[in-house]
Amino acid sequence: MHRVFRYLSSRTLNLKYDSLISLCRPISSQLNQLSVEKTRCYGNFYSRHDDFTERHIGPSETEKKDMLQFIGVKDIKELINKAVPENIRLGRELDLEEPKGEHEVLDHLKGIAKNNKLWRSYIGMGYYGCDVPPTIMRNIFENPGWVTQYTPYQAEIAQGRLESLLNYQTMICDMTGLDVANASLLDEATAAAEAMGLCYRYNQRQKFYVDERCHPQTIAVVTTRASVLGIEVICCPADEMDFSKQDIGGVLFQYPDTNGSIEDLSAFVADAQANGTLVVCATDLLALTILRPPGEFEVDITVGTSQRFGVPLGYGGPHAGFFAVKKKYIRMVPGRMIGVTKDASGKEAYRLVLQTREQHIRRDKATSNICTAQALLANMSAMYAVYHGPHGLKHIGTRVHHAALILNEGVESAGHSQVNNVFYDTLKIMPADQELNNIIQRAQEKKINLRYFPDDHIGVSLDETVEIEDLNDLLWVFGSQEKAEDIAVALERDCPRSLFNTPFKRTSKYLTENVFNRFHSETQIVRYMKILENKDVSLVHSMIPLGSCTMKLNSTTEMIPCSWSEFAHIHPFAPVEQALGYLQLFEELEKDLCEITGYDRISFQPNSGAQGEYAGLRAIMAYLKSKGQSHRTVCLIPASAHGTNPASAQMAGMEIKPIKADKYGEIDMVHLKTMVEKHKDNLACMMITYPSTFGVFEERIRDICSLIHDNGGQIYLDGANMNAQVGLCRPGDYGADVSHLNLHKTFCIPHGGGGPGMGPIGVKRHLAPHLPTHPIIPPYGTTGPEAESFGVISGAPYGSSAILPISWAYIKMMGAEGLRHATEIAILNANYMSYRLKGYYKTLYSNFAGYCAHEFIVDCREFKKTAGVEVVDIAKRLMDYGFHAPTMSWPVPGTLMVEPTESESKEELDRFCDALISIKHEIDDIEQGKLDPKINPLKMAPHSADVVLSSNWDRPYSREMAAYPASFVCPDTKIWPTVSRIDDKYGDQNLFCTCLPMEEYKSPFVAKN
Amino acid sequence: MHRVFRYLSSRTLNLKYDSLISLCRPISSQLNQLSVEKTRCYGNFYSRHDDFTERHIGPSETEKKDMLQFIGVKDIKELINKAVPENIRLGRELDLEEPKGEHEVLDHLKGIAKNNKLWRSYIGMGYYGCDVPPTIMRNIFENPGWVTQYTPYQAEIAQGRLESLLNYQTMICDMTGLDVANASLLDEATAAAEAMGLCYRYNQRQKFYVDERCHPQTIAVVTTRASVLGIEVICCPADEMDFSKQDIGGVLFQYPDTNGSIEDLSAFVADAQANGTLVVCATDLLALTILRPPGEFEVDITVGTSQRFGVPLGYGGPHAGFFAVKKKYIRMVPGRMIGVTKDASGKEAYRLVLQTREQHIRRDKATSNICTAQALLANMSAMYAVYHGPHGLKHIGTRVHHAALILNEGVESAGHSQVNNVFYDTLKIMPADQELNNIIQRAQEKKINLRYFPDDHIGVSLDETVEIEDLNDLLWVFGSQEKAEDIAVALERDCPRSLFNTPFKRTSKYLTENVFNRFHSETQIVRYMKILENKDVSLVHSMIPLGSCTMKLNSTTEMIPCSWSEFAHIHPFAPVEQALGYLQLFEELEKDLCEITGYDRISFQPNSGAQGEYAGLRAIMAYLKSKGQSHRTVCLIPASAHGTNPASAQMAGMEIKPIKADKYGEIDMVHLKTMVEKHKDNLACMMITYPSTFGVFEERIRDICSLIHDNGGQIYLDGANMNAQVGLCRPGDYGADVSHLNLHKTFCIPHGGGGPGMGPIGVKRHLAPHLPTHPIIPPYGTTGPEAESFGVISGAPYGSSAILPISWAYIKMMGAEGLRHATEIAILNANYMSYRLKGYYKTLYSNFAGYCAHEFIVDCREFKKTAGVEVVDIAKRLMDYGFHAPTMSWPVPGTLMVEPTESESKEELDRFCDALISIKHEIDDIEQGKLDPKINPLKMAPHSADVVLSSNWDRPYSREMAAYPASFVCPDTKIWPTVSRIDDKYGDQNLFCTCLPMEEYKSPFVAKN
Repeated sequence: MHRVFRYLSSRTLNLKYDSLISLCRPISSQLNQLSVEKTRCYGNFYSRHDDFTERHIGPSETEKKDMLQFIGVKDIKELINKAVPENIRLGRELDLEEPKGEHEVLDHLKGIAKNNKLWRSYIGMGYYGCDVPPTIMRNIFENPGWVTQYTPYQAEIAQGRLESLLNYQTMICDMTGLDVANASLLDEATAAAEAMGLCYRYNQRQKFYVDERCHPQTIAVVTTRASVLGIEVICCPADEMDFSKQDIGGVLFQYPDTNGSIEDLSAFVADAQANGTLVVCATDLLALTILRPPGEFEVDITVGTSQRFGVPLGYGGPHAGFFAVKKKYIRMVPGRMIGVTKDASGKEAYRLVLQTREQHIRRDKATSNICTAQALLANMSAMYAVYHGPHGLKHIGTRVHHAALILNEGVESAGHSQVNNVFYDTLKIMPADQELNNIIQRAQEKKINLRYFPDDHIGVSLDETVEIEDLNDLLWVFGSQEKAEDIAVALERDCPRSLFNTPFKRTSKYLTENVFNRFHSETQIVRYMKILENKDVSLVHSMIPLGSCTMKLNSTTEMIPCSWSEFAHIHPFAPVEQALGYLQLFEELEKDLCEITGYDRISFQPNSGAQGEYAGLRAIMAYLKSKGQSHRTVCLIPASAHGTNPASAQMAGMEIKPIKADKYGEIDMVHLKTMVEKHKDNLACMMITYPSTFGVFEERIRDICSLIHDNGGQIYLDGANMNAQVGLCRPGDYGADVSHLNLHKTFCIPHGGGGPGMGPIGVKRHLAPHLPTHPIIPPYGTTGPEAESFGVISGAPYGSSAILPISWAYIKMMGAEGLRHATEIAILNANYMSYRLKGYYKTLYSNFAGYCAHEFIVDCREFKKTAGVEVVDIAKRLMDYGFHAPTMSWPVPGTLMVEPTESESKEELDRFCDALISIKHEIDDIEQGKLDPKINPLKMAPHSADVVLSSNWDRPYSREMAAYPASFVCPDTKIWPTVSRIDDKYGDQNLFCTCLPMEEYKSPFVAKN
Repeated sequence: MHRVFRYLSSRTLNLKYDSLISLCRPISSQLNQLSVEKTRCYGNFYSRHDDFTERHIGPSETEKKDMLQFIGVKDIKELINKAVPENIRLGRELDLEEPKGEHEVLDHLKGIAKNNKLWRSYIGMGYYGCDVPPTIMRNIFENPGWVTQYTPYQAEIAQGRLESLLNYQTMICDMTGLDVANASLLDEATAAAEAMGLCYRYNQRQKFYVDERCHPQTIAVVTTRASVLGIEVICCPADEMDFSKQDIGGVLFQYPDTNGSIEDLSAFVADAQANGTLVVCATDLLALTILRPPGEFEVDITVGTSQRFGVPLGYGGPHAGFFAVKKKYIRMVPGRMIGVTKDASGKEAYRLVLQTREQHIRRDKATSNICTAQALLANMSAMYAVYHGPHGLKHIGTRVHHAALILNEGVESAGHSQVNNVFYDTLKIMPADQELNNIIQRAQEKKINLRYFPDDHIGVSLDETVEIEDLNDLLWVFGSQEKAEDIAVALERDCPRSLFNTPFKRTSKYLTENVFNRFHSETQIVRYMKILENKDVSLVHSMIPLGSCTMKLNSTTEMIPCSWSEFAHIHPFAPVEQALGYLQLFEELEKDLCEITGYDRISFQPNSGAQGEYAGLRAIMAYLKSKGQSHRTVCLIPASAHGTNPASAQMAGMEIKPIKADKYGEIDMVHLKTMVEKHKDNLACMMITYPSTFGVFEERIRDICSLIHDNGGQIYLDGANMNAQVGLCRPGDYGADVSHLNLHKTFCIPHGGGGPGMGPIGVKRHLAPHLPTHPIIPPYGTTGPEAESFGVISGAPYGSSAILPISWAYIKMMGAEGLRHATEIAILNANYMSYRLKGYYKTLYSNFAGYCAHEFIVDCREFKKTAGVEVVDIAKRLMDYGFHAPTMSWPVPGTLMVEPTESESKEELDRFCDALISIKHEIDDIEQGKLDPKINPLKMAPHSADVVLSSNWDRPYSREMAAYPASFVCPDTKIWPTVSRIDDKYGDQNLFCTCLPMEEYKSPFVAKN
């Protein structure tokens, strides 16, 4: 582990963080003065008119009153008193700043953003400048129709992004030369760690080689992951590796390597594989446009990032990590995969495949704890490839290589040594005598960041954004007298160092599929993006009441700053003094999140909820270790927990012991006590979700926390349901030690159709020294003398930094009162729906007073007996009513878990309830024989337009009943599922995970010319 | 006319423009240096990869070759040689800068934008700061689904924006208290001029009173318009007006007036009306939230701007002007109006009404030349009202009034006199002795713009954006010791000056319709906007080949700068030294447009094509007058001209003489010569469209120009078809003296669903002194000693400044070669389509070699005889194929005029041709009796989803034939018309032009609680 820390991107890191952050304070306070702190309420005479709370919370005051009356409580206070246990209630308002208006918050954030300095960064190491096509930025990244969908589990209303993600998988396969890719992982470093996990699952060998020329953050994440799995990571040069003992599970190398060098690994791969070792290759998509792909020298797995395919740097994320394998490993691939299947009418359609591998089914036996992917960013990268096509990509790829060749020529002729014999875009330079400091100084003068190696080498990684003037600036920095233009002209005649003159040249074609060769004008790509967008149901259409997933408003104002170049275009390893705006943002967000949760510190490094779980558990383990209690490894997990809980605990090296639920859905205290007693000597922690995934605030949460603490364990509180607590109670107050916060749930980061997510963890003071660190840029607050970090979680020091402005803005605009009220209305909305469904559906669990928390479980199990209707039929039938189904069969099989959130109005809740009630009437009709038991609207749902208007309609119910089953399903606003019910079985039996050949448009008419 | 010029918003206007512009040069060139001039092409070794031309132009190189081959020419050069007369061809490349890439152009423009300085402007005069809700900005203004539609003539695929525009009309009626409003005019000043026109048409009286307390730019535009119509405008104080002679056609006053004063006009109105004078009231929407509306004291017409309802200042535009009248004037209202009608199945639906008033039908007898409206901005304003609702608007309105009351209190107690007895948001202040200069200096220190009257009064107009700190700054500026907070507290107790304590208080309700009381959360408004968006066909769906309207790519990169605050938030009357960025932009765009057209000067003031026509003709008249030839008033106009041509000529006071076309569609030279001979002594000009609206480059254009010149006339060349000429030939070279340029056609400003447009005019040197001026900010270049401007055209000095970055960016990204090639491909695409349709449809006109220009006319007249099919049936049937119809029955009745533009790919052209060919087969089937002559897919088109899937389908053709008539109309990408064929007759007979009552959502289920 030690050796990776010697790579430091910046020589200025010796500046202390605290002094760095103080640097930005005067600036920002000055800005604040300029932008005017607007306190707005002066009696009634000059009261504010831009209360964001009113925009965020759905129901009007009248609606709230109606709902409270309907559920039989006097006011919201009474409801909260009845729903939330008194002994955990906060009893005061949160201590946050006065809420800001939308324009004000943008002004303020602009001031913070300006503290980030935009230098040109040629640091490389997996992060590169790129030109995001503006039309993709605007029509995908800035378009709520593309960012507010949920993960495409309901395939019939998700064919658009399923197609785009299939394009992504196809692109990854084509570029890397492997057979199968998944639909993205969190980043390159975690993808490498997942690859190590695959190797281990495959051959159970406990040693794993890592070539020392991998990116340092990759080595760090892999090493961190390995340490508790009993895998020994051996980091060394390739030529020191010995496979002959047949005890090496896998080997990871980087191609081109982190220094930029390209070497022939064929013999090496053959040797490893001959000895049963799997070969993992971290590689670079842009290099592969002209470089022989790893698939052609038989590696088993490739990993990497698709960031430089059209995704902004964003100070480290979010970007899509990729993962591709040879076909034989397909069932061992972690994460989500899209495949082709057919629908009920035999039409080709897309869906998520092989979900049987995932945690929500296999829990601690799953392939990984990975859940959230980076769907939005994968879609952007896929669309970048669609827009440029193979010719465009090859041109860009070649051009970047040529830039490196030009620079190499100038650097060498200026007397420096460039050490990479064969290279793509990255040079490693040993400056001529005494020149290092001059180079550094000139680079700073030109506002250029380079990679400074501890051994006085300098790295320069070029990218798509480099223009001839940038090359001239670089030449000047290296003291070259030459002009890039002249070198280019000379190299055009003769360029012996070109990759094209080596055996590394790529000869195979790629992206030959029609979709990559059709949409190269802006008009065409805009239409393609719109066609895909319009196939999918998102929050711009109707409510998506997914229990536990919290699909609420992602407001425009919160999203706007993510596009600002000050946030979008910073390299994560740029010297920290260029990122003071980000640091201020992190610090302020940390302060607010601590106040909201009752924790003392936050780490922003985990870039998904599952990552947060893992990081939190690892912090607990590190803490126990620091107390000399490494033997404590037992983790208690209730049966109702999220599937990622046991999966993460398993990855953290813990021993999982399940705790039963009682008949009220609460933790079976008898069983818990028994288990605690039994394992008290080895008890590490209990993981608990609160309010529970059964949708109830358990009364005994304080007791449970005490019980665990009394027996030497820690409390990991899963923050997925934090949105039921904000402003009402705080995990840090009632006994939790650590939680992850799904910022993409409670704190308004959109789901992006399956990511990005963001899962920072909050911890009590005693765990703070054990938070994640980073080999290049240790996060602020993790470098003190007490720091005993367990390791590194993500490739970037602060995870997906670029989306943190969303949560920051949400908190600043809502203020203490607004946040509390949002929680109250989330609880009101859930209880109202539960009450409205009474007499039609049974709500499975509520508390002693008859109230649920912010979500509730609708029991649908009896209908199977009475009418042959399964919960999936109800879910699919909801699509005909224009709705996305609630969470299905989780946490209880045969049920729907409904979470309306505070952002939905009563009108929308009523529409959804009416849809469910109408479906119940249909079930009644089946029971009573009025509808056919097999061919009925539920079993045949959803109904696509072509089915409903077919001349051959032969069903025993009407077309209108199929398509317009309720008065509010209007012809002119109807949302059509684009395919009929997906055939899951066929898809799993006939795995096909890349693009179908799309036919070119052929006119049906012979030209009469 | 003279007196209006005494109002100057800035005391610094004595700075000369040239020196001002030179101020910005060093800044911008410095910026250019920073942002790096990137010249990119160094042989093949380092060639650029971001060629925007490839994104803008639809067909790929392969497609171009295929098309050329298909139409039987060797290469594009041969086609151009055959299509464009040799004697006008440019013979060289345009002299423009090297093309820039997309990111580069944005960097460069950002540098220019930063030369605009954002001060707080409290100048008022019809332009006010406002908070544009970010969700409306992003989801309407920045959304191609809302900005790239055409004017909603094809109502069945335009119900979304028709509904929104009906909301707009309803809002205007409600706020003003009048009965009927149109769907927007160009700005407040032109709306006032149109009102004067209505008065004149109504009672034919030739005198028109204007209260001198109207906004100066309004007075200027009205006066300019009147001067050639034989109307005498008498500008005086109201109390000097004498209606008793019954010779006054109308009277215009401002309420509140330009000084901010509110007076009781009831008696005045009664007096005028008793004498047969119509009363026009310019008013302010935000004031009317709390102020008694003009309709309640019986004015006949109200006009104004809806800018402060959610539209950025944009340095003067675009904004929507409004126009509302009493019911009895409904048929005399200029511009477009939306009304309610029903569709073929009896369902309520929206459409444009009373088109019989418009120029494309009535030509010089039309109610006005107004054509383009400000649909996009009207939609933004309507959505602003929908989002805030009556309560929100009243709160904002009250708050702004309270701000004025607070300021008034402080100003008066500081010893200044405030002269408005009753006021809403505007104070007129006479500073205490010797204080004027101190106030000016302190205002500058705080970066605050005020209105400085020539008589040493100061005007302050407050707005929605004013916060308590702004008030404190203003108090400080006026030397007040008080704090706004304290004044507010005092006024809350007692506020005698409040409007609420006067008879001017509004007592009537407004915006009670459901649509204004339903969508107040962001979730709700986003869904409402999406529902409307998805009802409409726009360029994001398929090609819109509207002949003469040039619906081509409006690229994201071109649109992005329009949202930048440096362009969006400048008051048009801010001191010019704060708008140096704009000036640089105008100057550069002028230079490029002059090079493209061969003209010497450009005026950007005309904010629509028709405005440009009018301005150009007025410039001609002014020129002739300067030569002592005021008697020359005859204007020759070919029969094929745009309807706005004769309408504009009529408004310019010209005598119109039509010129016939010969059988080839060209100008009948014999007739032309006869007419020239006949009118040569009085010949003012000829208006000619080139290439002609028949889609052909006439060979004799040079001869025609010479003929007119030889007879003392000028050539007005209608620039609507400029996109067929750019880079190939230049009007200024072959004889034209003046043209308007539809920037919203040729130069990529989107159509916005019916505006904004932009119609600057280019002129030869001799006309330059006569270009439009402005009473507040005379445009640069119009103030020299030679200036003999004919007057003022628009309310803002540079028209719709805020959309000019679009055209600027287009030209900069395309460069000379790219622009020329775009023109070539526009011509190729049209000829390819014409050839593909051969054997199915007849192309009406082509040139001697058999080629058309950039558009062509498809003759559909014979089908009426052979199959009873009219052109409208074909247009409606195209919707079933997913297409918007081409221009229908213009310029030749019974035909379709097709203009594909360069942005459409061959694949899309083929799809469209195949749709037309497939329709031709349907027509054949009718002819042959295979389809019913009455109940066939053409006559019944378009087919909405509810009709096609109805259980009661009883038509003699299949549902599939109705909905999926071709292989490329796929179920999963089908674009459904939301209503069946619109009943035009019913709508005109039952005029209803405000919102229908929308029902609240009512659950069909009784709650079982």
